Amino acid sequence: MTTYKLVLAYDGTRFAGWQIQPNATAIQEILEEAISPLVHEKIRLIGAGRTDSGVHALGQVAHFTVEKECDPTMLFRAINARIPYDIRLLSIEKVHDTFHAQKDARAKIYHYHLALEPVVSPFTRLYCLHVPYALDLELLRQACRFFVGTHDFTSFSCECEKGACRRNPVRTLYRLDLVPEEGGVRLEFEGSGFLYKMVRNIVGLLIEIARGKMSIHDIEPIFAARDRKAAPRNVPAKGLFLVRVMYPEEALPENEKS
Amino acid sequence: MTTYKLVLAYDGTRFAGWQIQPNATAIQEILEEAISPLVHEKIRLIGAGRTDSGVHALGQVAHFTVEKECDPTMLFRAINARIPYDIRLLSIEKVHDTFHAQKDARAKIYHYHLALEPVVSPFTRLYCLHVPYALDLELLRQACRFFVGTHDFTSFSCECEKGACRRNPVRTLYRLDLVPEEGGVRLEFEGSGFLYKMVRNIVGLLIEIARGKMSIHDIEPIFAARDRKAAPRNVPAKGLFLVRVMYPEEALPENEKS
Repeated sequence: MTTYKLVLAYDGTRFAGWQIQPNATAIQEILEEAISPLVHEKIRLIGAGRTDSGVHALGQVAHFTVEKECDPTMLFRAINARIPYDIRLLSIEKVHDTFHAQKDARAKIYHYHLALEPVVSPFTRLYCLHVPYALDLELLRQACRFFVGTHDFTSFSCECEKGACRRNPVRTLYRLDLVPEEGGVRLEFEGSGFLYKMVRNIVGLLIEIARGKMSIHDIEPIFAARDRKAAPRNVPAKGLFLVRVMYPEEALPENEKS
Repeated sequence: MTTYKLVLAYDGTRFAGWQIQPNATAIQEILEEAISPLVHEKIRLIGAGRTDSGVHALGQVAHFTVEKECDPTMLFRAINARIPYDIRLLSIEKVHDTFHAQKDARAKIYHYHLALEPVVSPFTRLYCLHVPYALDLELLRQACRFFVGTHDFTSFSCECEKGACRRNPVRTLYRLDLVPEEGGVRLEFEGSGFLYKMVRNIVGLLIEIARGKMSIHDIEPIFAARDRKAAPRNVPAKGLFLVRVMYPEEALPENEKS
């Protein structure tokens, strides 16, 4: 048995998200169909996070296990040769057989991009949300602080809304930073884990506060309500990037330990 | 009579280039059809340069003339509301009636992007040429110098190839710089004017030199041959951007003069 860890980037625009589902093209499916013939067995690829339809990735992590060992360099070239150019394998390496891309993930970084100029560049239009009204960025920065730390994020999860909230809704956000960039700003989320649509729900509330439609004082009651309906609408998938997934040292191969 | 100067950005990926042609969607056509109903007359839009199919623009310039004056602010919003998001009007302003976007252009800047990493990011794949072999960048930089100055660029023009070389093939290149950027390099061309596919033909030769297939000593004989067939193949459109078009001060409105 050999387990491989993959790091992937993808432009989520034309995909129905990471996870395989009926009547839609999933990134997981494209990769499984590309890899299986190369390793001569039907593999199952497990992703660190199930990015939604339209969400992009700069550093999604996944793993698969095969009976017979293959050369990672051969696999790297052959997989990239078999998948479309809007998905790219950035690296592949052998890891401990116990490595699990989802269960072993200790932290993830997501970025959400907001375009704040009157006209959005044709070259970033698929990778940001255009906010056509004035935002108070200092207020936005202050509001970010209310989300950092350990909280019950039920009000910011679309899992619970769907009656599927079987997971513990308590998560720890290590940081939520507002970073200026060309044409606008990005919100950088780093946390222990994220509930379904949690980042997009938080960004939705932050925008309402920054444009003066809601107040910083609304944040605590929304957390306390433990009800998705207490928070405003979420923002579109296209501004969201899964940037990085972090693992404890023992899950990684020797050459990745610091 | 009122003349308007427009600055435009577009992602050329899905278009058949700037100029109207049968059985293909041209950027000029989309804009003319968006603007004409707004000004209540059928306008003709003249571009500074006819970007080819697949070529992108960050600062294409165009003009049109109408009988009846319109408010530029109204036009700015209404035009952007009527065109697809892969074309954006960046500015529009009234200029002297004699302004001509093509004839008055004194210089243009084009950039050509080369991706030099083993794997091209899904987010830049449509905006660069992937060069999968090693390039000698110092040699590339030296080769650039041979193109700067006033030359007969017949060997680098696909106009002459087609038997349509009625224009003077002498052009002046003010600079040709190699600039490092994330994932690779870009070649910055600034010149008095450019022949058909001239930038892409020059980049094709530069790559052959930088990968050791041709030599710096081949450049002079290729110029001297005055024959397109003397130079190697050109490079794809997708790496090319029309970045800026410059005009003499007298062609511009008061507020643009320095």
